[in-house]
Amino acid sequence: MDLLLTVLDLAGTFVFAISGATAAVQQRLDVFGVAVLAFATGTVGGITRDVLIGATPPLAIAEPNYALMTLAAAVVVFFGHRFVDRIQSPVAIFDAAGLSMFAVTGTIRALDYGISPIMAAVMGMVTGIGGGMMRDVLIARMPAVLQPVELYATAALAGSSLTVIGATLDWPFVPTVLCAAGLCFFLRFMALRRGWRLPAPRIGE
Amino acid sequence: MDLLLTVLDLAGTFVFAISGATAAVQQRLDVFGVAVLAFATGTVGGITRDVLIGATPPLAIAEPNYALMTLAAAVVVFFGHRFVDRIQSPVAIFDAAGLSMFAVTGTIRALDYGISPIMAAVMGMVTGIGGGMMRDVLIARMPAVLQPVELYATAALAGSSLTVIGATLDWPFVPTVLCAAGLCFFLRFMALRRGWRLPAPRIGE
Amino acid sequence: MDLLLTVLDLAGTFVFAISGATAAVQQRLDVFGVAVLAFATGTVGGITRDVLIGATPPLAIAEPNYALMTLAAAVVVFFGHRFVDRIQSPVAIFDAAGLSMFAVTGTIRALDYGISPIMAAVMGMVTGIGGGMMRDVLIARMPAVLQPVELYATAALAGSSLTVIGATLDWPFVPTVLCAAGLCFFLRFMALRRGWRLPAPRIGE
Repeated sequence: MDLLLTVLDLAGTFVFAISGATAAVQQRLDVFGVAVLAFATGTVGGITRDVLIGATPPLAIAEPNYALMTLAAAVVVFFGHRFVDRIQSPVAIFDAAGLSMFAVTGTIRALDYGISPIMAAVMGMVTGIGGGMMRDVLIARMPAVLQPVELYATAALAGSSLTVIGATLDWPFVPTVLCAAGLCFFLRFMALRRGWRLPAPRIGE
Repeated sequence: MDLLLTVLDLAGTFVFAISGATAAVQQRLDVFGVAVLAFATGTVGGITRDVLIGATPPLAIAEPNYALMTLAAAVVVFFGHRFVDRIQSPVAIFDAAGLSMFAVTGTIRALDYGISPIMAAVMGMVTGIGGGMMRDVLIARMPAVLQPVELYATAALAGSSLTVIGATLDWPFVPTVLCAAGLCFFLRFMALRRGWRLPAPRIGE
Repeated sequence: MDLLLTVLDLAGTFVFAISGATAAVQQRLDVFGVAVLAFATGTVGGITRDVLIGATPPLAIAEPNYALMTLAAAVVVFFGHRFVDRIQSPVAIFDAAGLSMFAVTGTIRALDYGISPIMAAVMGMVTGIGGGMMRDVLIARMPAVLQPVELYATAALAGSSLTVIGATLDWPFVPTVLCAAGLCFFLRFMALRRGWRLPAPRIGE
């Protein structure tokens, strides 16, 4: 079980780091800026969760594997940025996969630390969306997650909520994890391909 | 006593969440963005304080009541945003009330965790202004608290300092809390109605 | 030894606070905004490090000396801002000195708390660059550390890495500290005076 969670967590870190490094290249940052944005995007969600649930030092600080994953992503993007446009769509898919993995692993870790079910679901969502928010704040733009274009955090919350429900009702572990991650991925995928979104308030109409 | 503090804390959370949700509606965010900004504005001040004084998990994470208060505020604003303009002035008053409550409850909580008097006053101020700063960073504008337009953080610092003085000199609890919150509210109110402000350095004159 | 580290830490806090207060004056903030930016720039790097390594409450919260240093810097800048242009170059030198001190003290503190060598070097770098990043986020611009203009975080990482190597190989303490800080300062100085920088990816060429 722990192995499954660790693999999901490291894979999520890698794909988010790819998205951070790509944003850095688009901003024409130097090699260090690319590495910083890769690290921040890949780990800030989990670090925030761990600080909030009192699990310090956070996993991403205590275990060098996380930093190494983001470094690998930075290297891949730095030397492969000419191909970024060509693989744009797969990147969005990987990003959805990262969101799904983090939403589930973050929720389970919060439950392990005794956080209540409702707030554990929120912590799972924070794990999923935190890295991307930090990436956008660092390049001084409004976080994409707040903009009313795509179903993003809601997909994470759906996945983390299903994880909480499964854990509360004692469903078998592996199927629950896979279903919850799959639900998040499905919602995000439909948002990307079919434009699913949430209602926004209408002003001045 | 604890009941008084809890009521003040939850009331402050609610009114700040109202201001965050209102900013989100003005930015035309979707229903999730409204909920996120309501939660961040209502709880980040207290969460920051708790992380800094070592009280993890923070109250707003450990107790679902805080998240529920911000959710209620988001719902109120999401469905009532057509009336936002009409109640602008009361919102500013509620915001001042929230600032006053958080400055006092944040200071007392820091003292309870063994923080020194000077830094406890700073922590009270951080509790009061943290949520609004996060709200502004998330929508990529310079935090209002830094702009030289209004007496805001200074009012919070006055309230938290009076709380520290009262606690140090063993004044009776309830009157101290009410006087400190009242001082903060009075200063903020005069800034809003009479334009009280601090001096700014003059450049190029 | 502890005395040396404390002196370096407080001196670094002061010079960074000077840079934060100067940025605040350039943004025409009021006296409180100047004090907030001085405090944030001087202490956020160390506070972030302490929160991440689980050393709460952070030094800068537990010991009022840090806040007093930033207050002193704010007062100096607030009343001396007419001379800011004249001392611009010395300020950049002081800033490089602060970066060097924080990179070393942050690394040693992380090692003291049992962080692994690789991540201790990262924590040293975070201590050095955190304050400046927060300063820039608060005034809603992209952090200077991310912009491909100057060797900055890389200099900090070089200093913190040398500190880790020295600590791992049991080199004598004081020379190691001075050499590591000196390396960071030299790299930053050459970046300022000779334009040393890292390669950036080339797009559309």
